Amino acid sequence: MKRLIEPLLEKGAPKGEGCSLDLFSIGGSRIEVKLSSGRYVRPHSAILRIKNLISKELGKQKIGIRGLDMTSYKAEIGLEKEPLHPFGVPFADLEFKGLTCCISFKGLDEQGLEKGYPDRIIALIQEKVKFQYYGGKGEYWKLLWKSTEKKGLWDKDPSEEMVRLNWIKQGPSKGRWFFYPPAASVIKAMEDLAVREVLAPLGFSEVISPHVVPFEIWIKTGHMEGVPGEVYYVSEPSSRDPDEWSTFSDLVKITKTVPDFSGLVTKPVGGITYAQCPVIYWSLEGKTLDPEQLPIKVFDRKAVSCRYESGGRHGIERMDEFHRIEPVFIGTREQMLSLRRELIERFYHVFEKILNIDWRAAWVTPFYMQQAGEFIEEEEREEQIPEKISEIDLEDRDKGTIDFESRMPYREGWLEFQNLTIVGDKYTKAFRIKAPKEELWSGCAGIGLERWCASYLAQKGLDPEKWNLRIEDLKEPIRFL
Amino acid sequence: MKRLIEPLLEKGAPKGEGCSLDLFSIGGSRIEVKLSSGRYVRPHSAILRIKNLISKELGKQKIGIRGLDMTSYKAEIGLEKEPLHPFGVPFADLEFKGLTCCISFKGLDEQGLEKGYPDRIIALIQEKVKFQYYGGKGEYWKLLWKSTEKKGLWDKDPSEEMVRLNWIKQGPSKGRWFFYPPAASVIKAMEDLAVREVLAPLGFSEVISPHVVPFEIWIKTGHMEGVPGEVYYVSEPSSRDPDEWSTFSDLVKITKTVPDFSGLVTKPVGGITYAQCPVIYWSLEGKTLDPEQLPIKVFDRKAVSCRYESGGRHGIERMDEFHRIEPVFIGTREQMLSLRRELIERFYHVFEKILNIDWRAAWVTPFYMQQAGEFIEEEEREEQIPEKISEIDLEDRDKGTIDFESRMPYREGWLEFQNLTIVGDKYTKAFRIKAPKEELWSGCAGIGLERWCASYLAQKGLDPEKWNLRIEDLKEPIRFL
Repeated sequence: MKRLIEPLLEKGAPKGEGCSLDLFSIGGSRIEVKLSSGRYVRPHSAILRIKNLISKELGKQKIGIRGLDMTSYKAEIGLEKEPLHPFGVPFADLEFKGLTCCISFKGLDEQGLEKGYPDRIIALIQEKVKFQYYGGKGEYWKLLWKSTEKKGLWDKDPSEEMVRLNWIKQGPSKGRWFFYPPAASVIKAMEDLAVREVLAPLGFSEVISPHVVPFEIWIKTGHMEGVPGEVYYVSEPSSRDPDEWSTFSDLVKITKTVPDFSGLVTKPVGGITYAQCPVIYWSLEGKTLDPEQLPIKVFDRKAVSCRYESGGRHGIERMDEFHRIEPVFIGTREQMLSLRRELIERFYHVFEKILNIDWRAAWVTPFYMQQAGEFIEEEEREEQIPEKISEIDLEDRDKGTIDFESRMPYREGWLEFQNLTIVGDKYTKAFRIKAPKEELWSGCAGIGLERWCASYLAQKGLDPEKWNLRIEDLKEPIRFL
Repeated sequence: MKRLIEPLLEKGAPKGEGCSLDLFSIGGSRIEVKLSSGRYVRPHSAILRIKNLISKELGKQKIGIRGLDMTSYKAEIGLEKEPLHPFGVPFADLEFKGLTCCISFKGLDEQGLEKGYPDRIIALIQEKVKFQYYGGKGEYWKLLWKSTEKKGLWDKDPSEEMVRLNWIKQGPSKGRWFFYPPAASVIKAMEDLAVREVLAPLGFSEVISPHVVPFEIWIKTGHMEGVPGEVYYVSEPSSRDPDEWSTFSDLVKITKTVPDFSGLVTKPVGGITYAQCPVIYWSLEGKTLDPEQLPIKVFDRKAVSCRYESGGRHGIERMDEFHRIEPVFIGTREQMLSLRRELIERFYHVFEKILNIDWRAAWVTPFYMQQAGEFIEEEEREEQIPEKISEIDLEDRDKGTIDFESRMPYREGWLEFQNLTIVGDKYTKAFRIKAPKEELWSGCAGIGLERWCASYLAQKGLDPEKWNLRIEDLKEPIRFL
């Protein structure tokens, strides 16, 4: 048997660098195995190879293997940098010695080995060390371009002023705002601008995406691990049968409060849209696209987005519930990079020529890294800010995010009101979206309607007479006596 | 003291019909009281009057009342009909004898008495008896009008056919559908039709309503007691701090599944929009409207609606997540009734003249009763169905709902694809929306975009060449190889 096993443990490794079988002993109904390896064919893969072989051999005599039992599994890995302070991970005890981390795996069952938990645990350890060095630095930010400075800007907080004029009302819960007629008209005007001036000219088609997202999708995009504390979670009723709810209903009728009903709803089954792109990728999952239709250019504007903002809430600039249009585009690397240039031109046209606001563009941590808890590493370099936006330096920046920021005069700060990202192949791979020959990349952009609105109003004020933007049929506010 | 109390128990009742004080005895630190009454000044009100009086008197000597203790509280109420079978309610034991119900209240604390639980319990008992007689009859339905019969209708299930042609895809969870470009264009065309041909000509203004609804609002509208088994519930993270979520995140990274995280989210704090009107009423809560602006006419189209449909799901005809425009109108009774006629005319224009579908209108259980678990009682009557829709009989039907139904040829049935309701003062009262002199009524309508789409496609088919509806820039489907 040992002779059958040994070649198996070399497969896929350079000669002599596979896994070595240090002990193989059969006693009663137990087989004891000791394995050690270097970089190639790790013991948790090797043990599964051995199990399969033995199962096959024993199978001939109608005997099977009841299970795998791991009494001890230790590993030593090298770290790029020494951890700044010790930390833990699930399924393992860790000991740090300089640039070495000694791992004692624990609680791993067969399924965990099969699914490669040890590899993921090792990756996680490396990531956590890296995070100790870079994580605290905050978001990467590098100016790419800035608009001409606009004169005579308004200087009030647009949210506060809109509340005063009955344009908006806070509520009905934290971070949520109700838009009365004139404010709703401004949001609608921004939506129309984005579609008419940016998306339609570039040939984007509308799709409609459900806004309740099951966790499987966010596991693929990384949101589940990256932003679980920012998600609004959704549960279903355990039953739709009114009889099951009759005591609940009676109690509501009598007490006019909501009694505890934990037994009547499921655990969370999903969350409300954080960004629309995950579900759009899902809609193409496992599909092979027609090269003649590349690049695919679609957008969703129907899914409402929710993010739990907690202490960060501020008026309509940072809300828990908001409306964004998300264009998603999929094609070859070259198609994506050229579409990015076209989108930048269209955004320039809207922000500079139509809205005429004070704004700038910066190279920042890509959302797909940020939302998965990752961070950017880019070497510092001297950069010239070009006059023309078409000349901004994107040479070595194929994958990544550009943030567009508008000046908020009332608080002497800036608001990220638009972003644009080339994702690379992260999501096309995660969702197995293919073309017959081409390697597919993707990209997307977040057009935040409330933020476009806030950007415009913060600089131009609330007097429509003074707007350069003409809104057809702007309604008057509802008057309260 | 007794002499001070007795007049108090007569207040608000016809002479001699107030509450009678059968025992009032002071022993040590306890006061024992026995009360009995008829229809007026019920004991639970009387005891609070007594308590207040005593508190005031004792207060002079700096003594207070520690609490109220109800040892026994019994009531007999008359029922309109004999219950068909016995039933229970919270906070009481019930015994039925013919047309009498003997109630022994239990578990009621002072707060329950103050808030009038006994009155609500009595109302609930009456309602439950009524429901035994009428509840089983299902929804009330009476034909008001029907369109000319259209010839040569299509006969396939539009959802199935759209799946086949890559127009829609089921998912990413139960009862949810993703709309690819051509189907999204049809939904958009329906939305534009509703706004351009129905709402804009009648002077409606857009508002934007958050779609996560706190329970307090649904307690006021009756949804909380009426449809709790159809709501998708929303929870918040207990914390936004990534440190609180770090073990969770680690487990997601290692296992690529979602571990139990019940300790990291709150209980449900609200639900996803069932219909938009409750939040629109909330936006005007406690306000006095300017008579010159009446009737107020607004609509929301941004809040996504979710309803847990369970076994009732069918394609895009009955979904768990869908898009509707909800116009809400508030004004005098006369304004509401005349606006209803105008809306009917506009709907006629769209369904008959533009979409040219086979449809009909019926008088049905109003949604505000249905969604609060109530039902309609209308006497049977002979009715003539008029030829002109402007002549439908709404004479004795001021409050109530009209359903618009379209023929679904493939299943030889009908689909409710539009409704229109005069609510009366139920919601204006619940939300204390007033005008200086006028008594305010309200109304609303549910424009279901997926149902408009299903109605049109089920009758006209999926070949745009054969449509009378021209959709500008109808996109081609995404092709999968």
